[in-house]
Amino acid sequence: MEDIKCKMKNEKRVFSLKEICDYLGIECSEDKKITGLNTLVDANEEEISFLENKKYEKYLKNTKAAAVLIRKEDISKLPKGVIPLITDNPYLKLALLTKLFSKSPWEDGGYQINSSAKIDPSVRIAKGVRVGKNVTIMPNVVIGPYVEIDEGSIIYPNVTIYRDTKIGKNVTIHAGSVIGSDGFGYAHTSDGKHIKIYHLGKVIIEDEVEIGANTTIDRAVFGKTIIKKGSKIDNLVQIGHNCEIGEYSILVSQVGLSGSSKLGRNVVMGGQSATAGHLEIAPFTTIAARGGVTKSIKTPGVYSGFPLMPHKLWLKLQAKLSKLLKS
Amino acid sequence: MEDIKCKMKNEKRVFSLKEICDYLGIECSEDKKITGLNTLVDANEEEISFLENKKYEKYLKNTKAAAVLIRKEDISKLPKGVIPLITDNPYLKLALLTKLFSKSPWEDGGYQINSSAKIDPSVRIAKGVRVGKNVTIMPNVVIGPYVEIDEGSIIYPNVTIYRDTKIGKNVTIHAGSVIGSDGFGYAHTSDGKHIKIYHLGKVIIEDEVEIGANTTIDRAVFGKTIIKKGSKIDNLVQIGHNCEIGEYSILVSQVGLSGSSKLGRNVVMGGQSATAGHLEIAPFTTIAARGGVTKSIKTPGVYSGFPLMPHKLWLKLQAKLSKLLKS
Amino acid sequence: MEDIKCKMKNEKRVFSLKEICDYLGIECSEDKKITGLNTLVDANEEEISFLENKKYEKYLKNTKAAAVLIRKEDISKLPKGVIPLITDNPYLKLALLTKLFSKSPWEDGGYQINSSAKIDPSVRIAKGVRVGKNVTIMPNVVIGPYVEIDEGSIIYPNVTIYRDTKIGKNVTIHAGSVIGSDGFGYAHTSDGKHIKIYHLGKVIIEDEVEIGANTTIDRAVFGKTIIKKGSKIDNLVQIGHNCEIGEYSILVSQVGLSGSSKLGRNVVMGGQSATAGHLEIAPFTTIAARGGVTKSIKTPGVYSGFPLMPHKLWLKLQAKLSKLLKS
Repeated sequence: MEDIKCKMKNEKRVFSLKEICDYLGIECSEDKKITGLNTLVDANEEEISFLENKKYEKYLKNTKAAAVLIRKEDISKLPKGVIPLITDNPYLKLALLTKLFSKSPWEDGGYQINSSAKIDPSVRIAKGVRVGKNVTIMPNVVIGPYVEIDEGSIIYPNVTIYRDTKIGKNVTIHAGSVIGSDGFGYAHTSDGKHIKIYHLGKVIIEDEVEIGANTTIDRAVFGKTIIKKGSKIDNLVQIGHNCEIGEYSILVSQVGLSGSSKLGRNVVMGGQSATAGHLEIAPFTTIAARGGVTKSIKTPGVYSGFPLMPHKLWLKLQAKLSKLLKS
Repeated sequence: MEDIKCKMKNEKRVFSLKEICDYLGIECSEDKKITGLNTLVDANEEEISFLENKKYEKYLKNTKAAAVLIRKEDISKLPKGVIPLITDNPYLKLALLTKLFSKSPWEDGGYQINSSAKIDPSVRIAKGVRVGKNVTIMPNVVIGPYVEIDEGSIIYPNVTIYRDTKIGKNVTIHAGSVIGSDGFGYAHTSDGKHIKIYHLGKVIIEDEVEIGANTTIDRAVFGKTIIKKGSKIDNLVQIGHNCEIGEYSILVSQVGLSGSSKLGRNVVMGGQSATAGHLEIAPFTTIAARGGVTKSIKTPGVYSGFPLMPHKLWLKLQAKLSKLLKS
Repeated sequence: MEDIKCKMKNEKRVFSLKEICDYLGIECSEDKKITGLNTLVDANEEEISFLENKKYEKYLKNTKAAAVLIRKEDISKLPKGVIPLITDNPYLKLALLTKLFSKSPWEDGGYQINSSAKIDPSVRIAKGVRVGKNVTIMPNVVIGPYVEIDEGSIIYPNVTIYRDTKIGKNVTIHAGSVIGSDGFGYAHTSDGKHIKIYHLGKVIIEDEVEIGANTTIDRAVFGKTIIKKGSKIDNLVQIGHNCEIGEYSILVSQVGLSGSSKLGRNVVMGGQSATAGHLEIAPFTTIAARGGVTKSIKTPGVYSGFPLMPHKLWLKLQAKLSKLLKS
């Protein structure tokens, strides 16, 4: 399978549906302009989507996607006008497509730096970057294509910011952190190999966020990973692709959030606590240190343990275990 | 609230108490020269301290501080001559003050490198840095203002050392580690926002210490975070602000120490073990892998589990649980 | 103890056995050319080995080592022709010897870059490095002596690759990761000090491997740490010295593998799971998130918990604990 020619325009990759079908080895009669990939919910009329997991079948009927990678048995559920791209392995085909739509991690070219910004001469800045007023960027920071850093933000040494990341006002990012790295996602072949899902989304860091040292925040598959206003993140924290961290949340050191964890505002996660991903945590919830969240939390409160339980229950469990020990 | 003019002298920030009171919106009749902030115990006659937590009330009577941020109800406990700075939110006011006393993370200017030191040309060195005999500093290391690195030490690539850090003799720091980053501390407003505590202290790494790759060691709020002689720290370890690691201690990979953990000499902490902070661990204690220390340990021994218990008890607990499983 | 003169030839350090014995303060009558150190199993006729732990006594009889650091009581078990280097502390003497055989972490000199490779001008490349066709190396990467990077691989910014590392085809390494750092190994003196074991081995990353951001992979003591073909490693993962990761394995974020963990092909380790080292995990085994592996796993399956157990048993245990809570 060869890379087909890509017509780049304003950094958006554009293909015809026919080119894409040829690339994937899938039949399709109609043609259309295709400018991206997306979920069934978020896809627009120029985007391709996919249905792998029955769980998302309910989103088929309202999808606006131009075409959907789908198994033959499911095509009757597609709305009129949405083109089926029939395959036994929708997710695997999607993975191959993400490569086609992925952009270069580095491009040199013009950028725009406010004259009041203090940029160390050792900083490497890619094409299309915009840096606002009074921004400080310290030595050996690397800033990928089309990154935006707004007014008053401070980036410490040796930070890497991947392409398309947006950083708000008065954000602080400590040394060694990596913002916008690819999420950890692969489609698996029947013989146990892993095909990379190129991550086409971005990371957005809102105003007043502080990020510690050597922390990693992955970009979204599609759409965005977002750290909302005023949140504070400690050192060595991992935030997976497509996570959403609510306003004024606090993530203590070595927290690990799996992909698509959605935290409400003022959530506190103690040191080394973690989430299993694809879940929500109610606003004003506290997860104690080492807590492991595997299901959505709908009632705010303090939770502990793995499996997670209300903190009071966890204390009771420890008392019971203590008694068991003496028996 | 605007930044008031700062008269810098030899890197020490000096304000008059009146300026500070104006900045905080607090009344004060007297005036004094103020050169810093500190705890009740450590403050000198030119420093301001604070009382937020009743737990520290006992330190009021002997404090040498020039002035103390304090609630009205507590001012009678202040020793004679110590000026009360009355506020409902001592810790919040302190947070605002830390910003005033914080220094720039980067300054260019003269530094002093021993002629026998091997410094890669790509290394960025700030003002006031001193590098001793036979030190090796590898590519893309960034060294902040007034850092000292003593004889024979080796700094691997892409390490970041924040301002004021002191590194002893024959220290090794592996690639990507960050020494002296800000501790994770905030005062919280009544509407759930977090006000940064700027960290005015430093990190001291004593002789013969080795630090692994991508490890993070935070600077102290006031005073110092200290890693004592001959300690060995593995990769991806987190050491919070104001920690004290005793001589010849060993911290295995992914250990996380919360702020103000004080380890005696020859403490061993197994992989992924952690402390809750503000506690002490007796010399020659071993914490097994994954152990979670939430209280001070006064008796040396081997401890396991979370909650932590003597290792033998933990083994007994596992046997009990095994039996419970079969019941 | 002074460093004795080293005759370097083609990057291999060569000593006479007499020089080595003088350096260690050990008696030896015979002389021989010595070019390295190794385990009893892997040592060749020009290498020195050691016996510290009774567990490895069984390897004495077939060792090909030129000489063995050994306690007096064990010398009768040595095969004919293998020279005993008698000492009460074989491991401590070994540690001292590793320093003698260790090479400089950085040397400047000629290297070989394929003309199709895209190397950012800020990249620092040491002596003897070889970079293949269509390799991309992004800003501020640091590549140590004699590293090889094969065709099509992509190295993101601020990565550090230590000397002698071999990287295969189409490998991706994300920002901030450190490949080939020293393993965490020390010999201990009777008064509680730690003597560094210099790590003389290397890291091999095979084709199609992807490594996330701020991950650390330690080099081997002797021999190699190896990540086999097609394996995928997430962010902030720690892989200890001498680990072997089988083909197409998956290590999720914050996994920690202790030294000499040997994973079969298609092993999956969930987030924050870990191994205790010196153990094997059968191919196609899954360790759930937070699982702690302390013994070898011979039967493939899904395992959970710490201590580890089959996942079904772990679920049963949770049910029992739930019942205990209600009792």
